[in-house]
Amino acid sequence: KNNKLQLYGNSLESFLSEKRTPFFLFLENRFRDNALVFRNNLQKFIPNLFVSYAIKANYLGRILYNAKKLDLGIEVMSLFELKLAHKAGIPNSKIIFNGPAKTREELEFALEKDIQYLNVDSMNELILIETLAKKTGVVQPITIRIHPQLKEKTEKRMLIRKNSKLGIDFTRAIKLFSYAKKSAHLKPAGVHTHIGTNLTSHDFYDELLLFLNSYIKDLENKHDIEIKEINLGGGLASKSVLDQNEFQLSRLGEQVSSHITNIEDKIIIFEPGRYLIEDSFIALTKVLRTKKSWGRKWAFTDIGANSLIPMRYSNYKVVPLNFKGEGQYTNIGGPLCLPVDVISDESVNFDIQEEDLLIILNCGAYTISMSEQFGYPRPAIYALNQDNALELIKQADDIDTMVNDSF
Amino acid sequence: KNNKLQLYGNSLESFLSEKRTPFFLFLENRFRDNALVFRNNLQKFIPNLFVSYAIKANYLGRILYNAKKLDLGIEVMSLFELKLAHKAGIPNSKIIFNGPAKTREELEFALEKDIQYLNVDSMNELILIETLAKKTGVVQPITIRIHPQLKEKTEKRMLIRKNSKLGIDFTRAIKLFSYAKKSAHLKPAGVHTHIGTNLTSHDFYDELLLFLNSYIKDLENKHDIEIKEINLGGGLASKSVLDQNEFQLSRLGEQVSSHITNIEDKIIIFEPGRYLIEDSFIALTKVLRTKKSWGRKWAFTDIGANSLIPMRYSNYKVVPLNFKGEGQYTNIGGPLCLPVDVISDESVNFDIQEEDLLIILNCGAYTISMSEQFGYPRPAIYALNQDNALELIKQADDIDTMVNDSF
Repeated sequence: KNNKLQLYGNSLESFLSEKRTPFFLFLENRFRDNALVFRNNLQKFIPNLFVSYAIKANYLGRILYNAKKLDLGIEVMSLFELKLAHKAGIPNSKIIFNGPAKTREELEFALEKDIQYLNVDSMNELILIETLAKKTGVVQPITIRIHPQLKEKTEKRMLIRKNSKLGIDFTRAIKLFSYAKKSAHLKPAGVHTHIGTNLTSHDFYDELLLFLNSYIKDLENKHDIEIKEINLGGGLASKSVLDQNEFQLSRLGEQVSSHITNIEDKIIIFEPGRYLIEDSFIALTKVLRTKKSWGRKWAFTDIGANSLIPMRYSNYKVVPLNFKGEGQYTNIGGPLCLPVDVISDESVNFDIQEEDLLIILNCGAYTISMSEQFGYPRPAIYALNQDNALELIKQADDIDTMVNDSF
Repeated sequence: KNNKLQLYGNSLESFLSEKRTPFFLFLENRFRDNALVFRNNLQKFIPNLFVSYAIKANYLGRILYNAKKLDLGIEVMSLFELKLAHKAGIPNSKIIFNGPAKTREELEFALEKDIQYLNVDSMNELILIETLAKKTGVVQPITIRIHPQLKEKTEKRMLIRKNSKLGIDFTRAIKLFSYAKKSAHLKPAGVHTHIGTNLTSHDFYDELLLFLNSYIKDLENKHDIEIKEINLGGGLASKSVLDQNEFQLSRLGEQVSSHITNIEDKIIIFEPGRYLIEDSFIALTKVLRTKKSWGRKWAFTDIGANSLIPMRYSNYKVVPLNFKGEGQYTNIGGPLCLPVDVISDESVNFDIQEEDLLIILNCGAYTISMSEQFGYPRPAIYALNQDNALELIKQADDIDTMVNDSF
């Protein structure tokens, strides 16, 4: 515990405390550093690496500008996300279009824009793409999202299991690859997998890569289908969680390079979302109220679960803007009249009084993009830009506008 | 399974199928019927009954107009919700202000507007209200939200337990009542409890009411504090779930009247949200894609978890707009690229083909009010009004506006 929270050489205290709470703060340099660490560690072992930011983790335009500057690709799941990527200037050649139920309109748009990475989730989708490609007169490269063969023990540990809605069983997928190979308007190009959420374990990857390599060899040798792209999806935990679990990106790079035959001929794709963005956002909040009940101390903040989604996978940490000494164990709750609106019940134990300012760390992933106008306006968003200056990038919702919009 | 879904004498088929999917449909008559059933069943046993709609369940203006017409009160948790109630014309005397962390601004507004039902959650809040009431020169009636004494076995079955952030332990609450009694600017008026979410069991109420009656007797006899209002909160399940569980509102009314001494001198308050609104909304969605994987059939709809919150407590049922015969067991998923975006894995078994229209029942509670712009626009909302005519009450989000708002 430090007396002052330091971020990129600045004491945050002065410029955070003068703004109206609650608000989010996007740390541009942190995002950049995360992207560089991610790419550099993997690139040592993977000659043709393509890192594509999963836009669903947080779709703010400012992040997308940063992604573009860093030459990242963008993984999208809808026309909305595709248009966001376009507005940020991401080239079509760097967009990956994913999702289990793309509409005809979305697919037409993707084909028209010449999206090169099109992930396919079902036979029916493949047939629809073929129909549209024929009409447009193009040959569309496609990547099939498969659910791989994993040990039963591994499946049980997974968050995206084979009975999930996403992907297609690896045996059935062979039919899709073969169909695409025979089609004049489809070109099988890649295999896509996504085996989890908040992954922290190297052994998942050993099992996956071993399977994928043999699967791809079969496609190439038995079915004469050339696989240029191997998309390993996203699902990695945030940097801080990976560090706690002794997960190393460089070791992941080694795993890929040791398991994949002829890696120099393959494009290896990762779709990190949480890893890049989770600790690139903090929130500032004020303590509205404290109370004791049933022997527990509570502090209620002016930010709540409507914007700070209390998902199982979140890794929020609450620290004081000004550390005033040790205190009693305190639960941190938001202002919503819901029992699940709890930011931290790990019980921080520094001194907390009403009107104190608290910083919530690690709130970049699935917070802004999943925020709700549930009872309260959504907070303002600032950026701490690359010159360490504070810029307002999105105003807080206005209550009167929200009221009018509800009628 | 009917061949035609009938609602209030209309075949929905004709006018649902001509609208662009997905959309929600608010059934005004259903809401009215629910409110009347709720009130009539309890009123038989409770002379001074006050039914107050919990606005957080769904805060659409159109619902609030209906609530006003039905002479319901409104329970709010924030300035936003308070202003919504005002815009609908709900009188201040029928508004209940609840929540664990009201801001000074919210409390000032509430006092200025003469909100008569002010639920207090902590000693610090009570003191702040006193300060503001003194400044404004009013005597503010207050209701203390307590967490009652329940058997350990009961606590374990509860969703709002004594270690939750909401309310205050019943012993500590005595201090708040005594403080309020001594204050020239506060008037202790009521006891508030809220013991669960999706309650389906009469025995919870027996235990609660037995405790409350003795607690209130103590307040009145030992502490000379008159309790005029007993607020039993919300948390009741929807009508269909209560029916399945053989819960009867009239029996609840009997329970209240048999446990509460001198009931004719008390105002008995209920704050139903889910009960009134859950089955007052349906959604219409189109099947975008079907697939098989790992031996399971999936149908993907154009509505997803961004607006149809897949909460544990939801009671969605999927039925075909046109029943075309039995089919294979099918899981229904939304279009989002998330494994949790599943509307029904109870496996409906009617025939489902791409482009089919499906109706999702029971989607009024915590869907619109908790909806997210996560990847997709939020759907349009129509009302089937009291004359059985269809009116657009809220347009779907526009993708290009959403894109601009993100930059």
